[in-house]
Amino acid sequence: MKEQRVPGGWLTAEYSMLPYSTLQRKPRDISRGRLDGRSSEIQRLIGRSLRAVVDLEKLGERTVWVDCDVLQADGGTRTASITGACVAAGIAFNKFCEEGILQSSPLKELVAAVSAGVVGGSSCLDLNYVEDKDATVDFNFVLTESGEFVEVQGSGEEATFTQAQMDEMLELSKLGVGQLTDLQRKAILAGETPAEEGQLLGLVEQFQK
Amino acid sequence: MKEQRVPGGWLTAEYSMLPYSTLQRKPRDISRGRLDGRSSEIQRLIGRSLRAVVDLEKLGERTVWVDCDVLQADGGTRTASITGACVAAGIAFNKFCEEGILQSSPLKELVAAVSAGVVGGSSCLDLNYVEDKDATVDFNFVLTESGEFVEVQGSGEEATFTQAQMDEMLELSKLGVGQLTDLQRKAILAGETPAEEGQLLGLVEQFQK
Amino acid sequence: MKEQRVPGGWLTAEYSMLPYSTLQRKPRDISRGRLDGRSSEIQRLIGRSLRAVVDLEKLGERTVWVDCDVLQADGGTRTASITGACVAAGIAFNKFCEEGILQSSPLKELVAAVSAGVVGGSSCLDLNYVEDKDATVDFNFVLTESGEFVEVQGSGEEATFTQAQMDEMLELSKLGVGQLTDLQRKAILAGETPAEEGQLLGLVEQFQK
Amino acid sequence: MKEQRVPGGWLTAEYSMLPYSTLQRKPRDISRGRLDGRSSEIQRLIGRSLRAVVDLEKLGERTVWVDCDVLQADGGTRTASITGACVAAGIAFNKFCEEGILQSSPLKELVAAVSAGVVGGSSCLDLNYVEDKDATVDFNFVLTESGEFVEVQGSGEEATFTQAQMDEMLELSKLGVGQLTDLQRKAILAGETPAEEGQLLGLVEQFQK
Amino acid sequence: MKEQRVPGGWLTAEYSMLPYSTLQRKPRDISRGRLDGRSSEIQRLIGRSLRAVVDLEKLGERTVWVDCDVLQADGGTRTASITGACVAAGIAFNKFCEEGILQSSPLKELVAAVSAGVVGGSSCLDLNYVEDKDATVDFNFVLTESGEFVEVQGSGEEATFTQAQMDEMLELSKLGVGQLTDLQRKAILAGETPAEEGQLLGLVEQFQK
Amino acid sequence: MKEQRVPGGWLTAEYSMLPYSTLQRKPRDISRGRLDGRSSEIQRLIGRSLRAVVDLEKLGERTVWVDCDVLQADGGTRTASITGACVAAGIAFNKFCEEGILQSSPLKELVAAVSAGVVGGSSCLDLNYVEDKDATVDFNFVLTESGEFVEVQGSGEEATFTQAQMDEMLELSKLGVGQLTDLQRKAILAGETPAEEGQLLGLVEQFQK
Repeated sequence: MKEQRVPGGWLTAEYSMLPYSTLQRKPRDISRGRLDGRSSEIQRLIGRSLRAVVDLEKLGERTVWVDCDVLQADGGTRTASITGACVAAGIAFNKFCEEGILQSSPLKELVAAVSAGVVGGSSCLDLNYVEDKDATVDFNFVLTESGEFVEVQGSGEEATFTQAQMDEMLELSKLGVGQLTDLQRKAILAGETPAEEGQLLGLVEQFQK
Repeated sequence: MKEQRVPGGWLTAEYSMLPYSTLQRKPRDISRGRLDGRSSEIQRLIGRSLRAVVDLEKLGERTVWVDCDVLQADGGTRTASITGACVAAGIAFNKFCEEGILQSSPLKELVAAVSAGVVGGSSCLDLNYVEDKDATVDFNFVLTESGEFVEVQGSGEEATFTQAQMDEMLELSKLGVGQLTDLQRKAILAGETPAEEGQLLGLVEQFQK
Repeated sequence: MKEQRVPGGWLTAEYSMLPYSTLQRKPRDISRGRLDGRSSEIQRLIGRSLRAVVDLEKLGERTVWVDCDVLQADGGTRTASITGACVAAGIAFNKFCEEGILQSSPLKELVAAVSAGVVGGSSCLDLNYVEDKDATVDFNFVLTESGEFVEVQGSGEEATFTQAQMDEMLELSKLGVGQLTDLQRKAILAGETPAEEGQLLGLVEQFQK
Repeated sequence: MKEQRVPGGWLTAEYSMLPYSTLQRKPRDISRGRLDGRSSEIQRLIGRSLRAVVDLEKLGERTVWVDCDVLQADGGTRTASITGACVAAGIAFNKFCEEGILQSSPLKELVAAVSAGVVGGSSCLDLNYVEDKDATVDFNFVLTESGEFVEVQGSGEEATFTQAQMDEMLELSKLGVGQLTDLQRKAILAGETPAEEGQLLGLVEQFQK
Repeated sequence: MKEQRVPGGWLTAEYSMLPYSTLQRKPRDISRGRLDGRSSEIQRLIGRSLRAVVDLEKLGERTVWVDCDVLQADGGTRTASITGACVAAGIAFNKFCEEGILQSSPLKELVAAVSAGVVGGSSCLDLNYVEDKDATVDFNFVLTESGEFVEVQGSGEEATFTQAQMDEMLELSKLGVGQLTDLQRKAILAGETPAEEGQLLGLVEQFQK
Repeated sequence: MKEQRVPGGWLTAEYSMLPYSTLQRKPRDISRGRLDGRSSEIQRLIGRSLRAVVDLEKLGERTVWVDCDVLQADGGTRTASITGACVAAGIAFNKFCEEGILQSSPLKELVAAVSAGVVGGSSCLDLNYVEDKDATVDFNFVLTESGEFVEVQGSGEEATFTQAQMDEMLELSKLGVGQLTDLQRKAILAGETPAEEGQLLGLVEQFQK
């Protein structure tokens, strides 16, 4: 999984939609024998986003898996997975500190993600399933607590968009991420994974010393 | 392949790096029994980019496959694939018109793509392999001839970036795409696929009437 | 899925343990490319058990999938899956009746399952993970509300057992199933899937008219 | 294959029906790329049954594979496989003793299996293909020479059964296994694998020192 | 299976070595999830050889599968498979005639195969396993009853051979095939598949009307 | 890959037809998840042919992969692959000598291959796609520079052939290979892989010290 030979640990994510998370039952990956392209793309995105805010050297020679299983889907499952995975990782790192496994949390700052789109000509944040289907432009923004970007993914969905539209969505994303990081901070303090955006995120930390 | 029930045709892409396209031989997908996540992600991007400038209804009840096989890789194979694939599609559509299969080309306008990144603190266009490895930010822009965006993909590569850096790369990308569309126009007129950016792109048009 | 050509519908089950359901993270089936033998065996058992109490002819030309995803495992996941799946099916059938899809529920009677075993020489019901590991005999009983058997599976776990031991466990199983069917009746009336035995069961009904 | 870390060796089984073993040709597992659930279930059963009567510690650090390939199927292939596999293992162990590889046979006692069922309301032993198709209850019993049980598997085949029926079949199974162990003893002494119940069993012993 | 659109039926072969057919146990194809290259090559050869002597048009709209499962291997399993498969097909076709399914046998003439090689400098026919390992040249000849060739496959096994050596082996092969076709004729008349060359060949005829 | 335990290195080949190499687009192997039997057969042939003229001991403890990717197919791709692969290997070995990796080239002599067939009753060399389709007999000859045979593969393509026909094609093959080895010598001296017979062959040498 770890492609380059760097010192320190690794953090990787797995993403899967449970069959009954969608209105029309989604067949399991295993019934086709392979992970679909979309899921593979999303779990690579979640892993990159989290690694941008985790000090892998401080993590030490361990691999942390974050499992993102979507129990109910209503638009934006990839951004909710990133936001929730950061909370799960934060709680897990704190637990490692309590147990004396780590001296301080390798989470440098929070990371959260929002979706945005152009629906009926105007820019919207956090599209639900119905809005998402009608959107002509589909954006995902991953930002840190300090307002820097980790990932920007915008797609014209077989259409095109202007720079003005992109700028508008960029501004909205900053507002949205600001609200999410507030919620994340509370959830990490509370030590519970929030059932955020109709989804439930599990985390398994596995140490390979 | 075609996910939504829309009238008209479809255009899809396949992307593969030949084993000897890289300095260290890359094992074939088939030796592991499945397409890797990165290739799957890239061929979905190529398909979406082209479909944004193709009038699928005008294409009629056909599926066009664009095969992008990388013979030599030196950074930016996904953007070169999009740029070359548009030329290949343009030539193919013209051929269909000459043969009376289509009345006019379904290519609404040209689409081209460039990579950009932040290397040593400054924004660069069209990174080669060595620059790409050192880049802290990695962007891909897909733009149309008329300057609209089709796809924007930026990744902090386990780092973060500011909006100022993104804006700088956006400007560079417009310049780059402007130069590429000039070259594309000439290549389509000449009716030959250019061996662009150290790569060779094949096109197979397959009709399913 | 439906092996014999009989009139009426079909009911099938899928069983999967989520990666974080066990103390040591369980790799996903998809990471090995195939369903493991144990999961395949369990989902066949769940399907058979439910079909024993469902009037498939009354169900009509439909296929119902019951998804049993184990969120937390602590011994007896296969028996808890059967018990919970019966509740999920009961609620779903009632919903079909309310919606006028069916005239009356095809659930002929309730079915529930318990595990039993011989631990330290004495027969026990509903073994947890620690007891299960120490058990020399491992039994699963599937019984109907009316006290008839649907499935009996006993295994000496590389040991043997006597008829007296089996008879003892048979008696225990009847008591256990009696208690479970009481709980099932209430849950179906309440119309909610119980988070029973540390597990959560989803149900997706899919109609193929 | 060996799931728990125990000292000593291991014994495992593989089960396969040859394409022409059934009246209607059965496609090979390899043509679908994976072992079917039924075969996987059966070979796990054969392995468990044999390991219950083999002293794995005495076997030493070796793995023995027992291959059960069904050349002609007429009901009860799983029970015939267990019965024949025990003979094959017994002969192999004796050969190991003759060759000085082992000092005494690790076969603690014989194990044999019978199928039973309820056909037309009455309990029957060793059902053939036609009876098996009509049976409302389908049982498999694995017993040792000394009359203890190793495995009991009863299934209502989308029906149910009473304890009285089960008790009747239990009695029949003891009679059947008694006759089979007599035949097994003779066959092991003769040193030849019998072509029992229309089937032929091969055995390969492979030592991994 | 049938690659070209020709009128009439088809005849295809499957080839597999049972795990215990070789001195060192050969793992099943299914344990690796795919047919190995050698088996695939051999079953294509068997199919081509038989189709050369079968009137596919006379066979009618049916597909015949010939299953060649090697129970004991001692060199030349591919040539023995062809020779035996022809007998099996001959018997099956006669049975079809008796049953009124066909009016006359579509087997135009017999086909048989032999292996030959250069061992210790001199040409040999029908090499066993020990000779085969030492051979510097390895040939397989498939000939018809009337002395025409169907397939010639010669390989220097990482060595080379002269035309003189090939001519010598060609002469030997004609003698060998002459003897085999005599045996085949008798076996077809007797209506039994011979256990030829330490192997047993099964045949399944499956009609797809 | 290397089947026998011999001292020295190994040389292996991979063969693949690009999707647009044929008139009708050929789906990629990966879209079916496995290498087809024909490709597997061809790459085994290429490897054997080259190893017959390469001194593996002199090559040292290395593995050389020769990649044969067919860009345009017009009959005889397997023989052109062998002929071109020998040139590629020759150039690579010379480069190893220049770089001081090897002291002298392990290529003992040249190897080249031609196809031959019987079209309309007369023997022809180097059949193109149209001739190949009409041929009743299809031969491939692999010969060394010194006129010895490495491989002879003749197939009646659901027909038969006489020894006279085979002798005629043998004579033609010697003439053809003589011409090819002259071209190979020039190409190796020039140090460039020729785009021979409508095909382009890549070579990747990978050292595993």
